[in-house]
Amino acid sequence: MRVFLPDLPLFDVLDVQGVTPLIYSRDSLPDGEAEGLVLWGLPAAQRRELLRRPGLKWALTLTAGIDHVVTDLPAGVALYNAHGLHDRAVAQHALALMLAAGRGLHRFAGAQLSHVWAKAGPLHTLEGRSVVIWGYGHIGRLLEGMLAPLGARVTGLTSRSTPPQVEAALRGADDLLLLLPGTPATRHILDAERLALLKPSAWVYNLGRGELIDPDALNGALEAGRLAGAALDVTEPEPLPASSPLWARRGVLITPHIASTTDDLNARGAEYTRHFLSELTAGREGPGRVDLEQGY
Amino acid sequence: MRVFLPDLPLFDVLDVQGVTPLIYSRDSLPDGEAEGLVLWGLPAAQRRELLRRPGLKWALTLTAGIDHVVTDLPAGVALYNAHGLHDRAVAQHALALMLAAGRGLHRFAGAQLSHVWAKAGPLHTLEGRSVVIWGYGHIGRLLEGMLAPLGARVTGLTSRSTPPQVEAALRGADDLLLLLPGTPATRHILDAERLALLKPSAWVYNLGRGELIDPDALNGALEAGRLAGAALDVTEPEPLPASSPLWARRGVLITPHIASTTDDLNARGAEYTRHFLSELTAGREGPGRVDLEQGY
Repeated sequence: MRVFLPDLPLFDVLDVQGVTPLIYSRDSLPDGEAEGLVLWGLPAAQRRELLRRPGLKWALTLTAGIDHVVTDLPAGVALYNAHGLHDRAVAQHALALMLAAGRGLHRFAGAQLSHVWAKAGPLHTLEGRSVVIWGYGHIGRLLEGMLAPLGARVTGLTSRSTPPQVEAALRGADDLLLLLPGTPATRHILDAERLALLKPSAWVYNLGRGELIDPDALNGALEAGRLAGAALDVTEPEPLPASSPLWARRGVLITPHIASTTDDLNARGAEYTRHFLSELTAGREGPGRVDLEQGY
Repeated sequence: MRVFLPDLPLFDVLDVQGVTPLIYSRDSLPDGEAEGLVLWGLPAAQRRELLRRPGLKWALTLTAGIDHVVTDLPAGVALYNAHGLHDRAVAQHALALMLAAGRGLHRFAGAQLSHVWAKAGPLHTLEGRSVVIWGYGHIGRLLEGMLAPLGARVTGLTSRSTPPQVEAALRGADDLLLLLPGTPATRHILDAERLALLKPSAWVYNLGRGELIDPDALNGALEAGRLAGAALDVTEPEPLPASSPLWARRGVLITPHIASTTDDLNARGAEYTRHFLSELTAGREGPGRVDLEQGY
């Protein structure tokens, strides 16, 4: 089985019996055909070219999101994502942001820059908080297990939740975490109307896609004090331009789309790919098959 | 039973059958004698005066630490602390600091002030980390339960651990958390020699007492790159003076001794006191009796 593989460290030495690697880089694409394509870090034009090579049967993107691949995916090519590579780190990053918000770490970081020992400001733990996870799936289940010993209660919402279920959950939320995929149906799913359902003491977290939130509505709610804070690992647009008022808004924490990043991510990605290819050469289905009807 | 109580909100309306409250404030101490004294937020001089009132049989400090009370405690007066009031919040604050360190939240807070979307810098989760809790007790057990679903392993050290046990644990630590009480035996227990045992990639956390760490040795280790970072909720001296080099040291997170603070701490303290007094009037021992030989 011929497979296009990225020229990342550890990938070029992947040795899986029955797999012939064709190494690509952003500067150089190998000639010919292959049955499979493992995508990571390739610019859109080159990605499109490899996806359209004749004979391609499957593509594995080593990301969790698939919106950047789906638009160029030819009919008949099976798509796999690598949520299993990212779920645990994203759940820990979500917990990090929720605890940072509660423990005021963003305020204390600001005070530290001025060398000021300042005790002022609201402080809470996650004990007794009602956490609503919108886009409850693999990451949500992991996070729920992490929140249980902290005394937080989790309510999960999915794309199949009814509008009344969504409304009731948002009204009761102390913490609203967005983990939905980026699809046409989820664009600006958290808009001014839904933000108005939240308690003024509530926090919003976005680790899904920046487009899930209407950024003007979010900024307006924060400015008006109708929301306690927001922690964003993804933004619209992304990267967040220096001119965005969100950077300096009180109660906003921004991390630059690194929820799933760890120093060993490359090694973990190579190991994930090795396992995926081994499954295929053994005649089994690889993990992470995407349901293209659902969009994730 | 006559009991000195603070004039904090919710305390003056504590109504426990069999208890006659004598309300004190920092400006005004009630006359006469009482069997018990509930201490919170009283300056040293007034604290000393109440502790020396004839007839006093017990004192409950609503803090977890007791070092500020012990020196003035007359012989024969039983001392109780309120670790049960603080343990859960301190464990969550410790977890918040450990996750913030791993997820680079201190760096991203700095970048946010400059409106910069910057992905650079080391990032880890707590998965697979070796966490050493020095001063393993109530808080350590809670924290261990919180770390388990994140995939971190905990090693506990206590005042009864042998020097070889301490040395082995420090050498293997990815994260070293200090929760020891402040006693003459624990002063500067983390000194230059012990800091040198840690890996250069290790992080240190202090939520015990500032005096546990030699601040010059800590600063030197960080400056020399022999330690990845330190998150300090307590310092020596405290508050940390603006002139301390630790404020601006790369990899240092400082929170102003608020590990156990929550917006509802006063309400929780009143409820804790009500429960404590109810136990006493029912003829039972109150929780949190301090072993004065051990010093905690």
